[in-house]
Amino acid sequence: MESSPNLALSQLPSVYSAIPSSKYRNYPFWPGNKRRSSPSTRIQCNKMFVPGFGEASPEAKAANNLHNFFTYTAVKIVAAQLESYNPEAYEELMDFVGRHPLDDGDKFCATMFRESSRHKNLALRIMEVRSAYCKNDFEWDNLKRLAFKKVTESNTRLMRDYISETSPTETEK
Amino acid sequence: MESSPNLALSQLPSVYSAIPSSKYRNYPFWPGNKRRSSPSTRIQCNKMFVPGFGEASPEAKAANNLHNFFTYTAVKIVAAQLESYNPEAYEELMDFVGRHPLDDGDKFCATMFRESSRHKNLALRIMEVRSAYCKNDFEWDNLKRLAFKKVTESNTRLMRDYISETSPTETEK
Repeated sequence: MESSPNLALSQLPSVYSAIPSSKYRNYPFWPGNKRRSSPSTRIQCNKMFVPGFGEASPEAKAANNLHNFFTYTAVKIVAAQLESYNPEAYEELMDFVGRHPLDDGDKFCATMFRESSRHKNLALRIMEVRSAYCKNDFEWDNLKRLAFKKVTESNTRLMRDYISETSPTETEK
Repeated sequence: MESSPNLALSQLPSVYSAIPSSKYRNYPFWPGNKRRSSPSTRIQCNKMFVPGFGEASPEAKAANNLHNFFTYTAVKIVAAQLESYNPEAYEELMDFVGRHPLDDGDKFCATMFRESSRHKNLALRIMEVRSAYCKNDFEWDNLKRLAFKKVTESNTRLMRDYISETSPTETEK
């Protein structure tokens, strides 16, 4: 019988051999290692230090990315709505989408606003849909659940693939 | 005195003039318009139809994007941890980051795993950090709050900019 391919990180021996254990455990930013260097500070942060995000937090950066994603989704929603009952507006929308990138949602809407009177109405509709989608339809709890699942499954898969590659005897059993 | 530049979508008259009002209100996928065509179906979905995401939901797509973002963040966290007490490992990490794109987190980790024994330990550390960051440190409620705020503020700003551009008399007062 083959052994179970499900591996947890803790099952792998000496994964931190390149980093001396004592140093690693004493490093103040490591999770679970509470910073006690400034007992006078009332608010103690046990979180890992995340450098280099400028003035914005990682959450703000992720929210900005989601904002662009919601605009992209709103364009798809509006296009699907228009396709069946307003082919003319649908054609205009798809033509505009083909000419302007959707990676910056606000820039996309601002350009669309100034294209023509009909485009302005389309832009207003996209803006209303992205707001409604973000606040009502998007399943935030599901996002969190799927992200948890994704990171666990990806880590397991990456380790399993590596183990199976470097263990040829496993396949000979 | 200038009038308040804060505008809600409802304050703009006839924004849907390109789309006949009756059709717009009767369209089954519009939010707030409940689908009652199949009363025998027990589960009724009042959400907008989102087309074209293949087999994955928008939430799954967003979770995948966040997963790559968490890997990117984990690399920054680990780099900051190593910089001060293990310059050799820090140099190796930064050299690897310079040679490999970080847009696909799992591919990045898989490549790092196979680079060398020391890189394997770095990859395992990045994987552990991204899991800990996703599950413990990342502020999910804050993400939701910031996304709500972002979409409201962006929509207001886009409309305000447009109104101020197309209303030259406002500035003459």
